[in-house]
Amino acid sequence: MISLHDSSARGFNSDNCAGVHPEVLAAIGVANGGHQPSYGGDVYTARLREMFKERFGERAEAYPVFNGTGANVIGLRALTDPWSAVICAETAHIHLDEGGAPEKVAGLKLLPVPAPDGKLTPELIDRQAHGQGDEHRAQPRVVSLTQSTELGTVYTAEEITEICAHAHGLGMLVHVDGTRLANAAAALDLPFRALTTDAGVDMLSFGGTKNGLLYGEVVVALSPEAAPGMPYLRKAAMQLSSKMRFVSAQFIALLEDDLWLRSAGHANAMAARLYAAVRDLPGVVVPRVPQANAVFARLDPRVAERLGERYRFEMWDPATGEVRWVCSFDTTEDDVDAFAATLAAELRD
Amino acid sequence: MISLHDSSARGFNSDNCAGVHPEVLAAIGVANGGHQPSYGGDVYTARLREMFKERFGERAEAYPVFNGTGANVIGLRALTDPWSAVICAETAHIHLDEGGAPEKVAGLKLLPVPAPDGKLTPELIDRQAHGQGDEHRAQPRVVSLTQSTELGTVYTAEEITEICAHAHGLGMLVHVDGTRLANAAAALDLPFRALTTDAGVDMLSFGGTKNGLLYGEVVVALSPEAAPGMPYLRKAAMQLSSKMRFVSAQFIALLEDDLWLRSAGHANAMAARLYAAVRDLPGVVVPRVPQANAVFARLDPRVAERLGERYRFEMWDPATGEVRWVCSFDTTEDDVDAFAATLAAELRD
Amino acid sequence: MISLHDSSARGFNSDNCAGVHPEVLAAIGVANGGHQPSYGGDVYTARLREMFKERFGERAEAYPVFNGTGANVIGLRALTDPWSAVICAETAHIHLDEGGAPEKVAGLKLLPVPAPDGKLTPELIDRQAHGQGDEHRAQPRVVSLTQSTELGTVYTAEEITEICAHAHGLGMLVHVDGTRLANAAAALDLPFRALTTDAGVDMLSFGGTKNGLLYGEVVVALSPEAAPGMPYLRKAAMQLSSKMRFVSAQFIALLEDDLWLRSAGHANAMAARLYAAVRDLPGVVVPRVPQANAVFARLDPRVAERLGERYRFEMWDPATGEVRWVCSFDTTEDDVDAFAATLAAELRD
Amino acid sequence: MISLHDSSARGFNSDNCAGVHPEVLAAIGVANGGHQPSYGGDVYTARLREMFKERFGERAEAYPVFNGTGANVIGLRALTDPWSAVICAETAHIHLDEGGAPEKVAGLKLLPVPAPDGKLTPELIDRQAHGQGDEHRAQPRVVSLTQSTELGTVYTAEEITEICAHAHGLGMLVHVDGTRLANAAAALDLPFRALTTDAGVDMLSFGGTKNGLLYGEVVVALSPEAAPGMPYLRKAAMQLSSKMRFVSAQFIALLEDDLWLRSAGHANAMAARLYAAVRDLPGVVVPRVPQANAVFARLDPRVAERLGERYRFEMWDPATGEVRWVCSFDTTEDDVDAFAATLAAELRD
Repeated sequence: MISLHDSSARGFNSDNCAGVHPEVLAAIGVANGGHQPSYGGDVYTARLREMFKERFGERAEAYPVFNGTGANVIGLRALTDPWSAVICAETAHIHLDEGGAPEKVAGLKLLPVPAPDGKLTPELIDRQAHGQGDEHRAQPRVVSLTQSTELGTVYTAEEITEICAHAHGLGMLVHVDGTRLANAAAALDLPFRALTTDAGVDMLSFGGTKNGLLYGEVVVALSPEAAPGMPYLRKAAMQLSSKMRFVSAQFIALLEDDLWLRSAGHANAMAARLYAAVRDLPGVVVPRVPQANAVFARLDPRVAERLGERYRFEMWDPATGEVRWVCSFDTTEDDVDAFAATLAAELRD
Repeated sequence: MISLHDSSARGFNSDNCAGVHPEVLAAIGVANGGHQPSYGGDVYTARLREMFKERFGERAEAYPVFNGTGANVIGLRALTDPWSAVICAETAHIHLDEGGAPEKVAGLKLLPVPAPDGKLTPELIDRQAHGQGDEHRAQPRVVSLTQSTELGTVYTAEEITEICAHAHGLGMLVHVDGTRLANAAAALDLPFRALTTDAGVDMLSFGGTKNGLLYGEVVVALSPEAAPGMPYLRKAAMQLSSKMRFVSAQFIALLEDDLWLRSAGHANAMAARLYAAVRDLPGVVVPRVPQANAVFARLDPRVAERLGERYRFEMWDPATGEVRWVCSFDTTEDDVDAFAATLAAELRD
Repeated sequence: MISLHDSSARGFNSDNCAGVHPEVLAAIGVANGGHQPSYGGDVYTARLREMFKERFGERAEAYPVFNGTGANVIGLRALTDPWSAVICAETAHIHLDEGGAPEKVAGLKLLPVPAPDGKLTPELIDRQAHGQGDEHRAQPRVVSLTQSTELGTVYTAEEITEICAHAHGLGMLVHVDGTRLANAAAALDLPFRALTTDAGVDMLSFGGTKNGLLYGEVVVALSPEAAPGMPYLRKAAMQLSSKMRFVSAQFIALLEDDLWLRSAGHANAMAARLYAAVRDLPGVVVPRVPQANAVFARLDPRVAERLGERYRFEMWDPATGEVRWVCSFDTTEDDVDAFAATLAAELRD
Repeated sequence: MISLHDSSARGFNSDNCAGVHPEVLAAIGVANGGHQPSYGGDVYTARLREMFKERFGERAEAYPVFNGTGANVIGLRALTDPWSAVICAETAHIHLDEGGAPEKVAGLKLLPVPAPDGKLTPELIDRQAHGQGDEHRAQPRVVSLTQSTELGTVYTAEEITEICAHAHGLGMLVHVDGTRLANAAAALDLPFRALTTDAGVDMLSFGGTKNGLLYGEVVVALSPEAAPGMPYLRKAAMQLSSKMRFVSAQFIALLEDDLWLRSAGHANAMAARLYAAVRDLPGVVVPRVPQANAVFARLDPRVAERLGERYRFEMWDPATGEVRWVCSFDTTEDDVDAFAATLAAELRD
């Protein structure tokens, strides 16, 4: 097959527009050749399970899957009864961006609450955590957080600990959509465990695709409350990979030698560099200090449009003119500087 | 990452125990680097769509997905109303081996009919095709075939044409689970189109994983009856790949230069070689002449057990002692000969 | 069977705590005896269908069902695709009080918007009506109104007309949860048709239980957009009554001789009498002028508790001390006066 | 409302074509008047719960619902996990006649097995009870029996006991669709308990509608394995009656003074009378001796058609010419004799 694209062109649209990290691609090659049991019976998946126990504690059970929506739905389903509801931020990916998959394939009732910076708090959770025992109300059973959030903010370990204690006190469990958990951990300079197991989190979607994998996420059951039915839920959710050795090999590469940290830390640094370059430009308002790998900014829509002719990025909210710029493992300093210079030039026009 | 497995060891358990064909892995590398729009907005997916139109006709619309269960469920959902039922063989993968995904995530009612060789016929379909207009009966709307079948048999183009005409005459549509369509096309020496579009098939799951891909299948909508909602169904079914360029690149490699045919034809030839080597062995009964890449045989369970210590394969039916041996793109003549010799030796003991 | 309850005791908890209107019970007796085709093939259901056409227009198709949750779910399902979403007020019964049935049995994604008086407007609808064509977003397809609302307010015919025009302009359809449509029609002194068919409504849940029926609601498909699959949807939703003649006979009795209007008008009048009796009491705040058969009031919780020892009613919002008092077809003037007097006495203590 | 039908005309189509027993209608009248808590908080439902404990044992928990499909789906859902499957006879109502409700609203996977007389046996169950622990197979968790069966046969207490022991030994549970349990109990001259609790049954749909009720069935949880979530499942399945006092009052009337036995015993006796009158008629083949209230017979289709002009009954199987004649609580000896005479006359023509 011949190349059809410009492999040197990069934008700021999303970290899933980037390709595969070379170390990850190499790992796929290493895992290739010969036959291995399918559906997770292979040696790479066995090794991966150990690695997750090493990083998340002995009770952690890792289930590789294809993508983030699948990871979230399986993890939430495993924590819930058929009559349960899930409390999440109004900005949560599971509410806004998964095509209704939680409701449509798993019958999950979502109870969204407004959260201006994308972060839930005990007080916000309480707005929907009532009605236990009332058969007319889908029973609030899980709080779902996104880390880092869809708005580029990060929960501290203390905040997650407080939310978990609060939820558990209400008889509820805590799920973390960790599509960009690596970015949060890198930003806080903390091991994964401090933000999950040790904070009391019950179930985790551990992201890979947005941090340089070809494809793959891992559902990590952290507490004994996680259903014994996880393998069945994964299969019925159409997320059981037959050649799972290759999903697992990618994650081994990501965790080994801290590739996850190098990649996520780099993406965060590029976002910080971008923020520094644009925050004082006249005509740019940055509503939240970036804490991970995304910078949000409000611009004159005409400027955004002209900038968009040169670089792909997302118009986050047409109503306010807010745009989103995301950095990836492969974003370079030159990419950032050239982008900021282009923006500055457009603003001057 | 270091290798954890013996990359020269191969068995006969399933074609999804094999790894990735080198040309496919190379294509992933070619598609790597730079940024490309996610979720199918990339140039490789655009190219793939054209290639499917070239091979399946102008009306064919290709939707890459992660795996076969996902492809089947999306394709069936797109052809059905919420009150529909699907007629399939009792041996169909969608009935036996998908963990209830059709029922559990898509609410599909399956109406299985006994089919000794794995193949439906108009007569068998009629056993369940009744009750149209009766609100008490989930309405038969789709006939789902598997090509090649779970029992290693192959529908001829004429048989599929007859089934499609029969189903259409009843106001029903036809879905083909083509996980191993390549093996069937290679066996019959026919282009895909002769077995699908030209035969009247409405929806196809086009397999890749079992023919040397890392991962990936394609849902191919062939008739205008296919719902306009396919993109939404794929998303809600958690089968929308973010870095889709890599799924598409693999399929481009598979279709270009007829890699699909070289691989599937080779696997079929290895199955034929195995059949020739074992069919006359005393103590071996081959219930159906292999038509694709799988050989089924009935053995003394003790012989099967001893053979299983050397080679992985599937105990298909413990009640009858029937086992299944599957050949892959990477099965060698030496693999087959050594296996047959081992079997012959065990039978003599 | 002997009576176990005091048949003269009445409260203000809900109109579904009342029993059956004598004319309705008599109609059940008249329809009894002999055999009639089950599942709606009977003569009473045939007559009922005609009566709905007379009142809602020739295109109106009536489907009797068991209860309001069933009516809402079937009606919404019939208007939606598997990838659709439904916009409703945050206070909507379908969002708060149906145990998650829309999500759990029909996979409906709800998009609730805050509506302080329980009423949607075009502006409120627009807050969620975006994202058409974006596969990541469950597609907004239906606006669901409640008439009269859960907060005791009433949409005027003009307001409904405006909402329908707005929704249709966006390619969306309009569903009305008319559990208490009779109370709204009585309050506005309008025929049903003015508030539904003529205003552009596409699908209606026509309530009976809360207006003196033993059980029963009617799903009324008003526009050709309603799915042809209604009979199948009703059956699969477990809402197909076998002895349907008795559901239909009750509705015939309700519509004949305007029993619906006498009953609903009376309930409204009792609510107005109650409002007049309490609105000026010190310590009582009535946040919204009652427009149908429910009065909401904010009280000192201790007063509410003491009052609750004598009369059953609902603590609507513990956070604000808001309570709800509902009048029924069988509420008497003496009931209202005695209740108001008791309240006044408790407020003085 | 005036009568629209001939209240003296009765056929043999189904016991749900009959109306309401006068004692049942009287009980509704007795329960009427005044207000009672809705959704099961009333005194009649409290009394009914006691009555079920008296008849089915202290652990029995009764949940009144609207209809049989609802009762079956709720009961099965309560016994299953989201990854479970249910083994039933190919002739089971849940498989053939519920519009796919088990699959479509509850995601239940059914595993039907051929059962010529409508009755499962341990051997038949074993044909589908395998695959425990295999994530590719929806996990067999429940055996569902119908008593009396759809083919008019009856399980003895010993047969049910044997099936329950067998199922429990496999880690499975037993559900009984008891739409016509009363007919079976009457036929065997046994109390309900001998056929359910004492035999080891875990969950029961206790029928009322086909034995002279206006509407209503009761889901009876018999074992502690029944989910604690029953109230939520009933609500989400849209089967929670608001004016539940009237469902409960009907069942109180049915159980008090053994009305159930008088009615079911009479229907059975009428079926036996019909059997005696027709079994020796030339041109009539009765394939199974009737054990409850239904007689099946094979006739020349032309005879069946002529007979059908006078009496409504069901063409059970057009392929074999088998028809079904069902007797009800209100079938008279004269009805039977006149029907048999008409049949005899038609056969002579």
